Amino acid sequence: MKLCMIGVRGHYESVLDALPARPAMQVAGISAGADGDDVAPLVRWCRANGHAARVFDDYREMLDAAHPDVVVVAGPFERTAEMCIEAFRRGAHVFSEKPVAMTLAELDELAAAHARSGLHFAAMMGLRYDPAFHTAQRAVRGGAIGEVRLIDTRKSYKLGRRDAFYRSRRTYPGTIPWVGSHAIDWIRWFTGREFETVFATQSAQHNRGCGELETAALCQFTLTGEVLASVSIDYFRPQGAATHGDDRIRAVGTEGVIEVSGGKVLLADGDGERELAAECDRQIFRDFVAGVEGGECLISAADTLAVTEACLLARQSADEGRLVTFGERGKGGE
Amino acid sequence: MKLCMIGVRGHYESVLDALPARPAMQVAGISAGADGDDVAPLVRWCRANGHAARVFDDYREMLDAAHPDVVVVAGPFERTAEMCIEAFRRGAHVFSEKPVAMTLAELDELAAAHARSGLHFAAMMGLRYDPAFHTAQRAVRGGAIGEVRLIDTRKSYKLGRRDAFYRSRRTYPGTIPWVGSHAIDWIRWFTGREFETVFATQSAQHNRGCGELETAALCQFTLTGEVLASVSIDYFRPQGAATHGDDRIRAVGTEGVIEVSGGKVLLADGDGERELAAECDRQIFRDFVAGVEGGECLISAADTLAVTEACLLARQSADEGRLVTFGERGKGGE
Repeated sequence: MKLCMIGVRGHYESVLDALPARPAMQVAGISAGADGDDVAPLVRWCRANGHAARVFDDYREMLDAAHPDVVVVAGPFERTAEMCIEAFRRGAHVFSEKPVAMTLAELDELAAAHARSGLHFAAMMGLRYDPAFHTAQRAVRGGAIGEVRLIDTRKSYKLGRRDAFYRSRRTYPGTIPWVGSHAIDWIRWFTGREFETVFATQSAQHNRGCGELETAALCQFTLTGEVLASVSIDYFRPQGAATHGDDRIRAVGTEGVIEVSGGKVLLADGDGERELAAECDRQIFRDFVAGVEGGECLISAADTLAVTEACLLARQSADEGRLVTFGERGKGGE
Repeated sequence: MKLCMIGVRGHYESVLDALPARPAMQVAGISAGADGDDVAPLVRWCRANGHAARVFDDYREMLDAAHPDVVVVAGPFERTAEMCIEAFRRGAHVFSEKPVAMTLAELDELAAAHARSGLHFAAMMGLRYDPAFHTAQRAVRGGAIGEVRLIDTRKSYKLGRRDAFYRSRRTYPGTIPWVGSHAIDWIRWFTGREFETVFATQSAQHNRGCGELETAALCQFTLTGEVLASVSIDYFRPQGAATHGDDRIRAVGTEGVIEVSGGKVLLADGDGERELAAECDRQIFRDFVAGVEGGECLISAADTLAVTEACLLARQSADEGRLVTFGERGKGGE
């Protein structure tokens, strides 16, 4: 199985983590995907780990020359959809940084290209493999809290120093699709329900020279069955905090409440309150390859597309200051 | 100073807690305010504590006969505004259960009656006097987290057994104004800002025979200066949980984050993370009396009316499924 890697932005390291255990999987090509992005560390890693990867200036040339089975997309946000589409057109499965599209028009084009291809497609929703979130989700879907009625989520990041591409909506999808995408994914993943409406707000104040980057945002979703869900997002986590992110979820059900906080999973139900052991025996890229091979995996193409749509509709709600109904844009064309 | 007490629903015990230290303050009259509500325990308390309180069937007769300086209103929700207005008309200060009105029309009438009276008026926002919330609010307003940008709040209650009046909107204001009012009050109190818009959702599913009572709700406010705030409300707290309520706030500022959770106050800022000692040396009814006497107190009439308006507009948003802008109803009449 041949791999091509486009870009070194985002979470492509999860691919490298999985390769040593799969010697039959070879990195055949590397392309920066954006002028000025430095692929040298990735090239060094390949040489040190027995991958005879060629480096290409143009990622399309690479796809044509290397005939990869799998393409890893972690280039500039504004070219993610295009890169995924080019890969599908050449018959390659795609493992992509999220969000997989910057606009709804791009998303529709990407969804159509994927549907025609019949190939595997997954976004880098790495927090599905975090031991605490993984354990909590399995408990909830296993019935530990009865029927889920309400979900609250939190994504709080340090602002730190940000590359220039974070400053503009041309090169950064906005904070709701970038930071919030994980939380929006959890909501759908924990409930197994589909989104119906979203209202969101955001503010770019106090972003320390980061242009248009929003430093705070809130989303409020309603899912099928009147399940309510909230997302709280900010870039104000103090620089001195122990971890980069403060990631939390609280799922409230008819029979109990489960919370993930600080890497711990706490369940409260009729038997009292107790901690569940956090564990995950899966790895995101290993799982992706299982999906390629027709096996079971955690992140489907349907998940990838649905979460991207939810991110973009939430951003639209915040941009336009109005309630957005899922499916409303489809209706205009009928 | 003479006191009359109308009704035994809600948090009137905070009045009794404050009386032993103020022997000059006498309970002169008691009225149930609702057919079937039992005032016997309150009458017994008065006898045991040296208050020669007369019991009246009709609260208006009581107000006319007893000439109280202060009226405590904790009767049926649907008569709260009327009872407050009748007290103001007779020149009495009012300490009332919240929300102080069930509808915006009632609220406008009440605000006008209060404005004409020049009397002190405060709702029973008891959680302002909770040591943890009190300490966190003082830290935030003292600048501990810089400028507040985002607030997340939680009110989670056990459903337990509920009196029949909780089952109908005629006799219960809805879960957003009843349970959520505390959180809505915190948001304004912690930020010192005014509300601009609200979007809210709610569901009455799985309320175990409680009629119209909503078991879950979310509110999302925007305040002046693009400050964002969320409220999460539910009645699904497991019966076996250690406390009736799980009350939380998280205020995110430009220089730090403060959280109240489980009665503890945690501050994270440039110096790391630490717990603040939770303390409050004030008592809500003692504070109310200080306000009557022209002194400093935590809950003003302006707070009482503004929070009630925010509760009712949030409920309206959820009922009508639309974004509600504060001040929009005033504009029609200009």
